[in-house]
Amino acid sequence: MKISSIGEQGIIDLISYRVAKDAARNSDAIGIGDDCAVIPFGETKNQLISTDLLIEGVHFLKDKISAFDLGHKSLAVNLSDIAAMGGTPQSAFLSLAISGETEVSWLKEFMEGFSRLAEEHETRLLGGDTTRTPGPLVINVTIVGAVEKNQTKLRSTAQAGDIICVTGNLGDSGAGLKALLENVKKDLEIEFLIQQHHRPRPHLKEGQWLAQFKEVHAMMDVSDGIDSDLNKISKLSRLGAKVFLDKLPISENLENVCSRQSWNKFDLSAAAGEDYCLLTTVDPRAYDLLAEKFRREFNSKLHKIGEMTSVGNGVAYFLNEKPTAFQPKGFSHF
Amino acid sequence: MKISSIGEQGIIDLISYRVAKDAARNSDAIGIGDDCAVIPFGETKNQLISTDLLIEGVHFLKDKISAFDLGHKSLAVNLSDIAAMGGTPQSAFLSLAISGETEVSWLKEFMEGFSRLAEEHETRLLGGDTTRTPGPLVINVTIVGAVEKNQTKLRSTAQAGDIICVTGNLGDSGAGLKALLENVKKDLEIEFLIQQHHRPRPHLKEGQWLAQFKEVHAMMDVSDGIDSDLNKISKLSRLGAKVFLDKLPISENLENVCSRQSWNKFDLSAAAGEDYCLLTTVDPRAYDLLAEKFRREFNSKLHKIGEMTSVGNGVAYFLNEKPTAFQPKGFSHF
Repeated sequence: MKISSIGEQGIIDLISYRVAKDAARNSDAIGIGDDCAVIPFGETKNQLISTDLLIEGVHFLKDKISAFDLGHKSLAVNLSDIAAMGGTPQSAFLSLAISGETEVSWLKEFMEGFSRLAEEHETRLLGGDTTRTPGPLVINVTIVGAVEKNQTKLRSTAQAGDIICVTGNLGDSGAGLKALLENVKKDLEIEFLIQQHHRPRPHLKEGQWLAQFKEVHAMMDVSDGIDSDLNKISKLSRLGAKVFLDKLPISENLENVCSRQSWNKFDLSAAAGEDYCLLTTVDPRAYDLLAEKFRREFNSKLHKIGEMTSVGNGVAYFLNEKPTAFQPKGFSHF
Repeated sequence: MKISSIGEQGIIDLISYRVAKDAARNSDAIGIGDDCAVIPFGETKNQLISTDLLIEGVHFLKDKISAFDLGHKSLAVNLSDIAAMGGTPQSAFLSLAISGETEVSWLKEFMEGFSRLAEEHETRLLGGDTTRTPGPLVINVTIVGAVEKNQTKLRSTAQAGDIICVTGNLGDSGAGLKALLENVKKDLEIEFLIQQHHRPRPHLKEGQWLAQFKEVHAMMDVSDGIDSDLNKISKLSRLGAKVFLDKLPISENLENVCSRQSWNKFDLSAAAGEDYCLLTTVDPRAYDLLAEKFRREFNSKLHKIGEMTSVGNGVAYFLNEKPTAFQPKGFSHF
């Protein structure tokens, strides 16, 4: 039997089995299924560690993204994993396999994009490994961070009745990728969407701020899209989730482009992924006050998109407050 | 200008510049030039983190090494980085990019090799990332460990007059690789050498034991070969190093195979690399007693191979106690 026949999830399961087994040997460490591994670190802190592998032709197309943006994005997606736990990033380790045919100036720009974002978030690049490769460009980033033990937010701790919220618009990044892949003619709106795809902003400040509140129950970042990501919270918390498709926050840009291109905005906002904002579940009694505080703190909305339910399993969609059979579809990346 | 024209060292320099700059921003963290990044961790401990990227066709040939051995070796080379600092490994993170054409049984065997060694050294696999790739197999391991602050051994702390020692035989692994690449007919001796290449043993116990002694000044693991590795200790400690070629410990197997195949044993023992034993420098007044204690502890020699000198820069070779113009040559891997 070949790897292709067990699929991505099959590979993950095969390895996860080991990870889960190892995590279980130490009941303190939370090893799998969350954005980061959580390792107790002294009396009051947890250490957070996560690693992400990006392969040319699988996760990005080298002729579609600038070296600077790729450097930025390689770190940003890892910082977003730290944000998802309410943590603060500390250090990063970069492994790079690169073709001999690559221009040195490309590598310099890549490092510039990486380092600018690292400096902005006081994340030190403390090591790594580099090699030449005859194959596609490979980037692996390991990120290390920390969070107060009593502020560590997991995926498995949502409660029935919780309000499901996101900290930013959904679908812009996926629409940007779609525009790139379909060679949509560029204008300011399309360029905005592509920019969201290439330069995601990790919601670190939002994550740290939300982590202070015990009424914030579960948290993760939106990397695969609400449909897939909320399903993880749902499974790990053993609850159902109702999502109001018409409440998914989308930008005016995306609204316009969807009309023009006849793109389905619900597919993009619910399933395209790579938004890298935060998805969180909040005690319903605290939501109004928290959303108001959030607005004052960030001049931005804590968008309510649904509710956790004690019945059901996985995500159920609603449109205009009525159940809908609509199932958002992601699209195969490359 | 292309990457190929600046070479492997050029890539490393380009990235190291950032690492060094980042490490300098925090005088506590030792970021570059050593086997691991060293991060202060509470009052008495340092955390150790290292990452290694292995690419099919660059670091290994998939049809020459079994899946089990490759899993073993991927972790072993990382554990060796922890051993090099005197540390104890704690957790590992595995990123894997794998072709859809790979057999599932291959991946299971790989994980078996990885996990057996992890269990042996109580190292928990706490996370990672997996993806399919159209290119060569990619393995990235990040290892996390710890060491007492006052037992952390660096490359930069050798002293003039120190005895240079290694904790195991040299050249077996390189000869094993050479036998594989030249398709030398296999017999027990050749198979022993190939085994050394495919199943390196990280010298963790030796590293932890040596780290207790303040008379052990500098330490690293032998990954690129004595010629290259000792040069790093020499440069970082700003000292010269004398190496007695005829004192480099080699196995009887290697001696025999070198005679038979007309291979230069000094090239293999001094420059072929991937031995993954430890290279350490010891206060000359303490060496005799330490070597005797080491022999009792490990039933194995702490081999004296040279001396650090206050004059000179880099490694100078001696044969039968006389300077020699001989320069050991490594060989390009693939």
